[in-house]
Amino acid sequence: MSSSFNQVTVLGAGVLGAQISFQIAYRGFEVTTYEVSDAALKQARQRFKGIAAVYPTEVEGATAAAAQETVERIRFTTQLASAVQGADLVIEAVPESLELKRDVFARIAASAPPAAVFVTNSSTLVPSELMDSTGRPDRFLALHFANHIWVNNMAEVMSSPNTDPRVYQRVLAFAKDIGMVPIELHKEQRGYIVNSLLGPFLMAAADLLLRGVAEPNTIDTTWRIATGAPKGPFELFDIIGLRTAYAVASAGGPDRQAWANYLKRNYIDQGKLGVESGEGFYIYPMS
Amino acid sequence: MSSSFNQVTVLGAGVLGAQISFQIAYRGFEVTTYEVSDAALKQARQRFKGIAAVYPTEVEGATAAAAQETVERIRFTTQLASAVQGADLVIEAVPESLELKRDVFARIAASAPPAAVFVTNSSTLVPSELMDSTGRPDRFLALHFANHIWVNNMAEVMSSPNTDPRVYQRVLAFAKDIGMVPIELHKEQRGYIVNSLLGPFLMAAADLLLRGVAEPNTIDTTWRIATGAPKGPFELFDIIGLRTAYAVASAGGPDRQAWANYLKRNYIDQGKLGVESGEGFYIYPMS
Repeated sequence: MSSSFNQVTVLGAGVLGAQISFQIAYRGFEVTTYEVSDAALKQARQRFKGIAAVYPTEVEGATAAAAQETVERIRFTTQLASAVQGADLVIEAVPESLELKRDVFARIAASAPPAAVFVTNSSTLVPSELMDSTGRPDRFLALHFANHIWVNNMAEVMSSPNTDPRVYQRVLAFAKDIGMVPIELHKEQRGYIVNSLLGPFLMAAADLLLRGVAEPNTIDTTWRIATGAPKGPFELFDIIGLRTAYAVASAGGPDRQAWANYLKRNYIDQGKLGVESGEGFYIYPMS
Repeated sequence: MSSSFNQVTVLGAGVLGAQISFQIAYRGFEVTTYEVSDAALKQARQRFKGIAAVYPTEVEGATAAAAQETVERIRFTTQLASAVQGADLVIEAVPESLELKRDVFARIAASAPPAAVFVTNSSTLVPSELMDSTGRPDRFLALHFANHIWVNNMAEVMSSPNTDPRVYQRVLAFAKDIGMVPIELHKEQRGYIVNSLLGPFLMAAADLLLRGVAEPNTIDTTWRIATGAPKGPFELFDIIGLRTAYAVASAGGPDRQAWANYLKRNYIDQGKLGVESGEGFYIYPMS
């Protein structure tokens, strides 16, 4: 089936929002990118430039000319009502706050076409926490992308109990249309599939370290040899970023607090944030 | 440092015991292989033939002539006392039963040279549960191999609180001498590193399936794309074997029973045991 979405609005042009806008526009859709201010839009334009530069080197068959033309085709606006006018699909990628997201959906509910489908890219919320703010629970669900979207090209698609199954199917088709592997979830799951697997796995590794069983590089080596995986858990922690790992652990139960404290004391307080800062559990050459 | 082990006795020539004997003999050590009966030894000889046939195709630089010569050099015996005579190192790889292992250690304690080091390859026990049966707690620890030892070439080395640190170092050196990556554990950990990571990871995947969140191939696809791993959790279940997964789950807490029941009802009762039977979560072409 075809998604029959033509005009797509992406709310938010942060790291992931910009990647989403670019990927969709590159695949031929009409894209409008919304940001809160001219300053934010200016920053977004820089992000798009960076993406256009790297995209042809990382995506098979992509050309610099097409990447350049993609950026030129994206429409930018700071007007929320105008951003969603005529949209077939609105992708919400604003900062991860329940209140902010609910407020944004409430504000666009009246301006967007009644038939428009809304999706959230939230990593930590589930659609049923947001649906009543959208004015269209049956045309609302989650479409969740991973960072570095054109390489980690999967999109997790997750309905609330109120989502119309035909809308779910259209969003699955859209994910395929934009070059993603659609990941079908049959019910709401906080953390979707990726984080539901990563969480217990990473905490098991953290637990071995906290209890002094083995060193991070020993644990990583073991996992790589045993499973053939390219990265062990502490290499993944460094990629995810130790501030994110800290935030997740801090929000967890009492057993997670020891890990949050360990990360803060030994890494974050010393400016070791993982790959992004050049050092975490490992040292990374800065380019 | 050198391990200064020359004569090595391997107790048990099951799937892993035979691999251990072969790998050590191939690396130039004098190896004695013990099995309980002539029938068991006959089966073991078949195993060694199979290993010698495949080894040169899977190990860089290995030759058929050297593999053949390796098998010829291994000494076979069904006499426990004679098996350990003159041994510098005794590797216990008998079936996974606490009572059996304690009994075997008690029986060799008097026949083996007092200076001989004993190690257990137990997957599920920790050395302190066995040490008093060995008559030499200071010269006893765990040396744990993974199936397909020449490919998954790591050896987890784990002391009890009573193990002499110099003995631990000698066993680490020995692991290197026989072509393993030695994995240093600093304290006793049931399941070592591999199973301490695999357990929570695989159970998180099982939980998503049990609760109807997504299908096995969807979950596997997600993990592969998100982490670059060659296999997802249900592919790993099939490799480990669903009977093993069932046994592990059955021995676990009440939350694991639902998974044990699911495996039994949908797979094991129907002869679907994973890769070994040609079908588990996936279908495998039988060679």
